[in-house]
Amino acid sequence: MTTALPPLPLDGDAALLRVRPVDGDADEVVAVEMPIALTVNGISQAVMLGTPLDLEDFALGFALSEGWLAHAGELLDVDIDDSRADGIELALRITAAREQGLKLRRRQLAGRTGCGLCGLESLADFHALRPARLAPPTLPHGALARAAAALPQAQQLNARCGGLHAAAWCAVDGTLQFVREDIGRHNALDKLIGARARAIRGGAAAEGFVMMSSRASHELVHKAAMAGIGVLACVSAPSSLAIATAQGLGVQLWAFVREARATRYA
Amino acid sequence: MTTALPPLPLDGDAALLRVRPVDGDADEVVAVEMPIALTVNGISQAVMLGTPLDLEDFALGFALSEGWLAHAGELLDVDIDDSRADGIELALRITAAREQGLKLRRRQLAGRTGCGLCGLESLADFHALRPARLAPPTLPHGALARAAAALPQAQQLNARCGGLHAAAWCAVDGTLQFVREDIGRHNALDKLIGARARAIRGGAAAEGFVMMSSRASHELVHKAAMAGIGVLACVSAPSSLAIATAQGLGVQLWAFVREARATRYA
Repeated sequence: MTTALPPLPLDGDAALLRVRPVDGDADEVVAVEMPIALTVNGISQAVMLGTPLDLEDFALGFALSEGWLAHAGELLDVDIDDSRADGIELALRITAAREQGLKLRRRQLAGRTGCGLCGLESLADFHALRPARLAPPTLPHGALARAAAALPQAQQLNARCGGLHAAAWCAVDGTLQFVREDIGRHNALDKLIGARARAIRGGAAAEGFVMMSSRASHELVHKAAMAGIGVLACVSAPSSLAIATAQGLGVQLWAFVREARATRYA
Repeated sequence: MTTALPPLPLDGDAALLRVRPVDGDADEVVAVEMPIALTVNGISQAVMLGTPLDLEDFALGFALSEGWLAHAGELLDVDIDDSRADGIELALRITAAREQGLKLRRRQLAGRTGCGLCGLESLADFHALRPARLAPPTLPHGALARAAAALPQAQQLNARCGGLHAAAWCAVDGTLQFVREDIGRHNALDKLIGARARAIRGGAAAEGFVMMSSRASHELVHKAAMAGIGVLACVSAPSSLAIATAQGLGVQLWAFVREARATRYA
């Protein structure tokens, strides 16, 4: 039995690793999944597993979708420590006023890639994170099809290794504005939420919608609502809970969004 | 704006819901995702989100892959309470001897569908759940291709609504023995682990491998190892952590398993 070589970092790209398959004669490239710890003003808050790319976007987006921050201006800075052997640490510094609020509902999180909301003590805690009801924009005909058609070629990292999800921020007409990728769909959306918040602070329009490469999970719906995003479109199927969550939070939910058709579930 | 009808249960099948899409003129079927709480000898242990199907398998498989049980014989019975409005409760009764061990490492879990191992306080806790090293069986030529070819038609629930993952237990020659489906890939594997443990107690052979419809995540590798399963084959890509976990635990890991080819990563 041949033994696989240990993974080797790919020069210049921390999000990919070269690996030599067992019995293979050439390297392949796989997506990196590693622990990413988040601290807020020095206090440990969460450990997620994700792809180490766009980490400042991830820090801001995760903080917004978890309700740690009410708006991007409360985040003063993010220090990225990638010198540790056991993972990456993102040290968020937030305003003192916001830190007071955060202490009231501190959580211990040891999440995994798939997790949107791990670490809450109960489902009641989850429902307590209830954002304001949204007023979704009206999408012109063809907007969803345009976004669905453009998404695959925008998944640049996925094209190299497979297994990655993408979240895209789209203008109301369906034009892709920017894309974030991660091995976890919830992480990809958190990164996008962070990138969008930065773009809006820089003067970009807040109107538009999110297009996801994945199925529609209730966590994605909830994260979108927490970020004030009123329309979520997903390539694959919705779950029953995603539909119910979208109805409850006033999020316009589209699933099975392909070039030829799309179904609106809420 | 038309409002979607609230989901209606589909007669005779708790795992599917009929929903009427907004602006649609016919019902569609979506997979149910709901809270499933697990208690052990009366004490709350975890809340996962999953598809309410094969719940006895899920209870046993989750308990085995979490290390709550060392073997299936320690589970005395499972009481399924589906009368609650907020979810399903699975009440596991385990032997008194085993309960003593469990108290030492009780966890609060409020997991989600994607989560394999939510609720651990740190990654160190995760690595502490280290199963014995395995001796994987040697697969004959064509076994993986046979399993990959048979899997799609065995995903009966997925054919009706999409968005579901499947875990299949395969004989060493690749013949599918049984399949479990869930909206979460980790839940699907937990259900399969439970079903397999029952089958082995009934006299079935313990040799074989798992074929998953999903990507290869490290949680799947870890669950397989905890259940004493030495070969894991996945339709889609592996993550770097899945490969490292498989190398560390001695699990033979195959990914990109299709009818025409498969790549072995560990």
